[in-house]
Amino acid sequence: MKNTFGTTVSVTIFGESHGPAIGAVVDGLAAGIPVDTAYIAQEMDKRRARGDGLSTARTEADEVEFVSGVYNGHTTGTAITMLIHNRNTRSKDYEKTADLLRPGHADYTAYAKYNGFQDARGGGHFSGRTTAAVVAAGALCRSVLQTKGIRIATHLSTCAGVRDLPFSAQTEELLAQQQMLNEKNFAVISEAAGAAMQIAIRSAAAEGDSVGGVLETVVTGLPAGVGEPFFDSVESELAHLMFSIPAVKGVEFGAGFGFASLRGSAANDAFRMQEGQIVTATNHNGGINGGITNGMPLVFRTAVKPTPSIYKEQQTVDYKSKTDATLQIEGRHDPCILPRARAVQDAMCAIGLVDLCTQRFGIQWQVQEG
Amino acid sequence: MKNTFGTTVSVTIFGESHGPAIGAVVDGLAAGIPVDTAYIAQEMDKRRARGDGLSTARTEADEVEFVSGVYNGHTTGTAITMLIHNRNTRSKDYEKTADLLRPGHADYTAYAKYNGFQDARGGGHFSGRTTAAVVAAGALCRSVLQTKGIRIATHLSTCAGVRDLPFSAQTEELLAQQQMLNEKNFAVISEAAGAAMQIAIRSAAAEGDSVGGVLETVVTGLPAGVGEPFFDSVESELAHLMFSIPAVKGVEFGAGFGFASLRGSAANDAFRMQEGQIVTATNHNGGINGGITNGMPLVFRTAVKPTPSIYKEQQTVDYKSKTDATLQIEGRHDPCILPRARAVQDAMCAIGLVDLCTQRFGIQWQVQEG
Amino acid sequence: MKNTFGTTVSVTIFGESHGPAIGAVVDGLAAGIPVDTAYIAQEMDKRRARGDGLSTARTEADEVEFVSGVYNGHTTGTAITMLIHNRNTRSKDYEKTADLLRPGHADYTAYAKYNGFQDARGGGHFSGRTTAAVVAAGALCRSVLQTKGIRIATHLSTCAGVRDLPFSAQTEELLAQQQMLNEKNFAVISEAAGAAMQIAIRSAAAEGDSVGGVLETVVTGLPAGVGEPFFDSVESELAHLMFSIPAVKGVEFGAGFGFASLRGSAANDAFRMQEGQIVTATNHNGGINGGITNGMPLVFRTAVKPTPSIYKEQQTVDYKSKTDATLQIEGRHDPCILPRARAVQDAMCAIGLVDLCTQRFGIQWQVQEG
Amino acid sequence: MKNTFGTTVSVTIFGESHGPAIGAVVDGLAAGIPVDTAYIAQEMDKRRARGDGLSTARTEADEVEFVSGVYNGHTTGTAITMLIHNRNTRSKDYEKTADLLRPGHADYTAYAKYNGFQDARGGGHFSGRTTAAVVAAGALCRSVLQTKGIRIATHLSTCAGVRDLPFSAQTEELLAQQQMLNEKNFAVISEAAGAAMQIAIRSAAAEGDSVGGVLETVVTGLPAGVGEPFFDSVESELAHLMFSIPAVKGVEFGAGFGFASLRGSAANDAFRMQEGQIVTATNHNGGINGGITNGMPLVFRTAVKPTPSIYKEQQTVDYKSKTDATLQIEGRHDPCILPRARAVQDAMCAIGLVDLCTQRFGIQWQVQEG
Repeated sequence: MKNTFGTTVSVTIFGESHGPAIGAVVDGLAAGIPVDTAYIAQEMDKRRARGDGLSTARTEADEVEFVSGVYNGHTTGTAITMLIHNRNTRSKDYEKTADLLRPGHADYTAYAKYNGFQDARGGGHFSGRTTAAVVAAGALCRSVLQTKGIRIATHLSTCAGVRDLPFSAQTEELLAQQQMLNEKNFAVISEAAGAAMQIAIRSAAAEGDSVGGVLETVVTGLPAGVGEPFFDSVESELAHLMFSIPAVKGVEFGAGFGFASLRGSAANDAFRMQEGQIVTATNHNGGINGGITNGMPLVFRTAVKPTPSIYKEQQTVDYKSKTDATLQIEGRHDPCILPRARAVQDAMCAIGLVDLCTQRFGIQWQVQEG
Repeated sequence: MKNTFGTTVSVTIFGESHGPAIGAVVDGLAAGIPVDTAYIAQEMDKRRARGDGLSTARTEADEVEFVSGVYNGHTTGTAITMLIHNRNTRSKDYEKTADLLRPGHADYTAYAKYNGFQDARGGGHFSGRTTAAVVAAGALCRSVLQTKGIRIATHLSTCAGVRDLPFSAQTEELLAQQQMLNEKNFAVISEAAGAAMQIAIRSAAAEGDSVGGVLETVVTGLPAGVGEPFFDSVESELAHLMFSIPAVKGVEFGAGFGFASLRGSAANDAFRMQEGQIVTATNHNGGINGGITNGMPLVFRTAVKPTPSIYKEQQTVDYKSKTDATLQIEGRHDPCILPRARAVQDAMCAIGLVDLCTQRFGIQWQVQEG
Repeated sequence: MKNTFGTTVSVTIFGESHGPAIGAVVDGLAAGIPVDTAYIAQEMDKRRARGDGLSTARTEADEVEFVSGVYNGHTTGTAITMLIHNRNTRSKDYEKTADLLRPGHADYTAYAKYNGFQDARGGGHFSGRTTAAVVAAGALCRSVLQTKGIRIATHLSTCAGVRDLPFSAQTEELLAQQQMLNEKNFAVISEAAGAAMQIAIRSAAAEGDSVGGVLETVVTGLPAGVGEPFFDSVESELAHLMFSIPAVKGVEFGAGFGFASLRGSAANDAFRMQEGQIVTATNHNGGINGGITNGMPLVFRTAVKPTPSIYKEQQTVDYKSKTDATLQIEGRHDPCILPRARAVQDAMCAIGLVDLCTQRFGIQWQVQEG
Repeated sequence: MKNTFGTTVSVTIFGESHGPAIGAVVDGLAAGIPVDTAYIAQEMDKRRARGDGLSTARTEADEVEFVSGVYNGHTTGTAITMLIHNRNTRSKDYEKTADLLRPGHADYTAYAKYNGFQDARGGGHFSGRTTAAVVAAGALCRSVLQTKGIRIATHLSTCAGVRDLPFSAQTEELLAQQQMLNEKNFAVISEAAGAAMQIAIRSAAAEGDSVGGVLETVVTGLPAGVGEPFFDSVESELAHLMFSIPAVKGVEFGAGFGFASLRGSAANDAFRMQEGQIVTATNHNGGINGGITNGMPLVFRTAVKPTPSIYKEQQTVDYKSKTDATLQIEGRHDPCILPRARAVQDAMCAIGLVDLCTQRFGIQWQVQEG
């Protein structure tokens, strides 16, 4: 349904980069969920540009305004609408080059789809700006999961060619990593790797270029039995959401593409009893068998392409005159979107999991004790 | 919606491996589409096991019975129901080991979700058997696309560690590759690579083991402007469907995870005019910008894990007694699912594209001339 | 979604009157629900034609064949597919008059929608025959509701101008009426009224004519708090389903159109405490306030038009020649559909309520004790 | 989906009576539709309270603020979000009697559903206030229909026991009636009937009471072939939407409940050729056969109950203390909602028809010439 996703809990995203506001409607959250505006602001802050050379100079306060569905600090059970106003827009940056299709962007495809009526300023509806609304919606959903002991954390697994340390296979250590990552703005397990990434990003930026990478998410505390086959497997639902994030071009679960070079005997995760619980000795399947959670940590990765907005001169086409042309982009852009995109990935993951858990456990589960 | 997917064209999948039949309901196809049963049989045949050492000895005729929605050789415009009867079932193969959770399978998660009421015979609803219904549904959808000049082809890009030749960047050559692949049962571009793959598969099978790989699909002839942001991008829709295929654990578009090591200047696909058309010089984005087709070939790959059913002894848990155990699987299984799964991937792709094209162009587009 | 309806529990209906079979896929029922085939057969029997002068001479055994989703006498939690084969078809009855649009039928509108590719035999997809699949699906849903103490009963409130006695306002008496109605094939509270109706129906049939009426349903045992505003109110959901029944042209809840002549002071249902429960002194709102159940009996009525298939000569148009014509219908038809349609209304009601209750209480509610 | 409705064109409604704003997201409108803010304001004005003794003294400017999806005076093709701020709220009116359940309102059912977390001020999400957002969304949809020659008009068929003149069976006269009604705030065909209705409304108001009635809508210019069986018939879709309007308790199409007393020979609409077109001699079926439009005027009526907010003393229950109580309502209320509700009915009708027409003709139909 285009701008709406979800079965029991649904999210509708709207807005354009240079319009009055972007926002989200979240429907299907139970009545009585505490709305922690400080927590939401903290999540919004992780996605916020800082103008620090790692992200765009377009910095926005990104305050979330609640229009409906929240009363006396709690959800009312009806549709929750959140607005985030666009304040720091400089549409003039785009005017000079408005007819030059930016490579790697949706400029051309938006023309093909919307016949020239799209709001092209700053990428319009296709801008990464819309993901601020995702983060707001996700923060609401995530706060529900946290009361259930379901924890999400994402790190820059690879960025600009630099690799972070992996998530730990030990539960205690993994939980500590999750907490640490959720307190960081630049989400890496290894500070050294993070420093190297930042150098590499600044180096690319200095050349007017951009870099990509891989974001890895791990979810702990998910009970076994969540997911809806045939079509609404955990993988299908989460991949659907992840591929809605601009710049995501790949999604893999567990060993993912690494499965291609494994034999079944190495790929299969042996079951075993541990303290009365069924667990698996390895977790190549990333916590999912047959599309349903098995109680092990849920693990997935996304491939994030380098920001297409680069300052180097590029070959392109002038859409109006239908002639070849060269483009020198202006405006304010991120040389690397990963440090901010991790907050969007966390949020999308939370949205998907609240929906799947509510399908499995019912809406009252969201506010039940224990 | 669990077993139903799609907005304007929807598919509902039902059935269990050892039940009376599996099947599909396809809704939203226009009235008047010719139903070519020979073509459907040919597609079914590509997914069929041959008992040739590359695939399971459970061979099924897989005849498609039309229950509704087809009259006088054409679609009527109402829901089309297809049944494929299960004939060659040997449920006894599973009885001895019924309580031993098969690693890599949905046995445990099905218990967690269905409280012991699942039909566990042969994997039940989680069996790859259900994908026969997908192929039948997909063949209907694909025949619509073909009248529009939209061609789908999938090859075993990598299998058992052996790499096939890539798709060509030249249009004529690419179209020829597509045609060739669609005429083959073992879908490789390079016969030599195919031979090496078959040797590697048989070698693994001889050891009671299994292998995985990567399936790559290319779609030609798709017009620009197809896809529905924010949530129903081409990537989101196709990934949703691909991850519904049992054993798929990764999906990537264009350069996919390869984007992680590219800079923006190398990753961006420059636009240029070619014979009056806007094209891109490279196709790292796999024919999609901002979730919408740009008229270039659509390219994606799936990571297919090695079949979890292997004959080697495995460590597991006895679900009833909740104790550690060892498992020696019997039954009839594929040492490698890729040669058959390519037909499922083609079908899923066709289902997704017919839905997206119908959203863009309307239901009558399906039967319009030209 | 055309042939699929429902959010947490969905039903897909397929089939044509003279095709091989009609059927339904029910998705979203919990694993472990006992499938009582005798009960389903009993409900099917209520919809069955008897060839007794009150209903069509086309009598079908209407055995329900389970294709998927049921194992060992219980639901498995996956999609349940049921088939009902068409055996007693006489397509030749329709051939002579195939181009003459039957007044009151969908012949013309099917042409307009399906461009001549519809299966017109016996009305095809528009035949009341498809409602056999609704009854099968509804029987499954209803058996879930019954374990929760939620009882549905429908009577012929008015038929052929004869009025039945009303439902009682006394709980005990109402429950007794429900039970009595559910044991009857000709569902009236007053035997005398029923006898008069049957005479009136036979009298119309003798003249080659048909009659309509009003079916009234009451549901007891529904807890307060069920229903999903804004759009998925109990009224919206049930009316959506009721208007899917061929021949239903009106739906009203509680006082319904009678509200038009009431003042607010007479229409409002006063709340009062009764044995520790909040009840209403009257029930003009039919158990629903603001689209949500209030714990009082749910009451609604449908207007069922007289069967359009009559044997009297009618004025019409020859679709092929586009000329005025006269039509003398042959075939086998019901002079009054109400005695059979009440089973369809019960079924549709059960489908809607299981979906709404599952949205409110979760899927496990379906199989919970108490 | 609770607060979202529609397949190809969907509308999401949000907001509470005394919250910051109410609003709607409309998704699925084509790019390039002119947005006529004056027309929207005119439709909003028809729903606006005037404080004239016929409607509540709470008068709101009801200016529609576009947050997304509109640029340069045209739709962009992405989600359109509209806000209508609540300015004239007097929540104190409700404080004194907050625990006293208002008869005929959703106070009790909201408690049952939302466990006390609902925003009860002014009825919150259940207030008729939310229908202002419906009117805004409907005006957008209606402007699309008008460019296709599809005209909607609604009149107070019966109000306070006074009956208006019927719609004409003559096309020219009917079109003139439609135009006249759409220019009126008090939508009656007969000025004399309107004057009598106003006297009756004021008379009830003077007694602290309220009145109901029947709203009748006729749509002209709809092509044959619109509507989606089995479940998404024109009747099902429109009834679903109509029953979402607070206070609507009945919906009937064509002869509706009048069918109950007709024989088939009188009820059937004979087909005939007229100027090369297939028409029906009568229109008892209200322009719909088998759930699909037949090209004749679409006719339906809703039963609107008297406003439950009356100033007479009422018997009720104190929810907190669970004791019987008496209630004397304060606040500002409409003695009759019909004069304003007709604008909501027009809007809902437009929403449903744009969705159904887009399913049939495709999204580009919305902006095609002719």
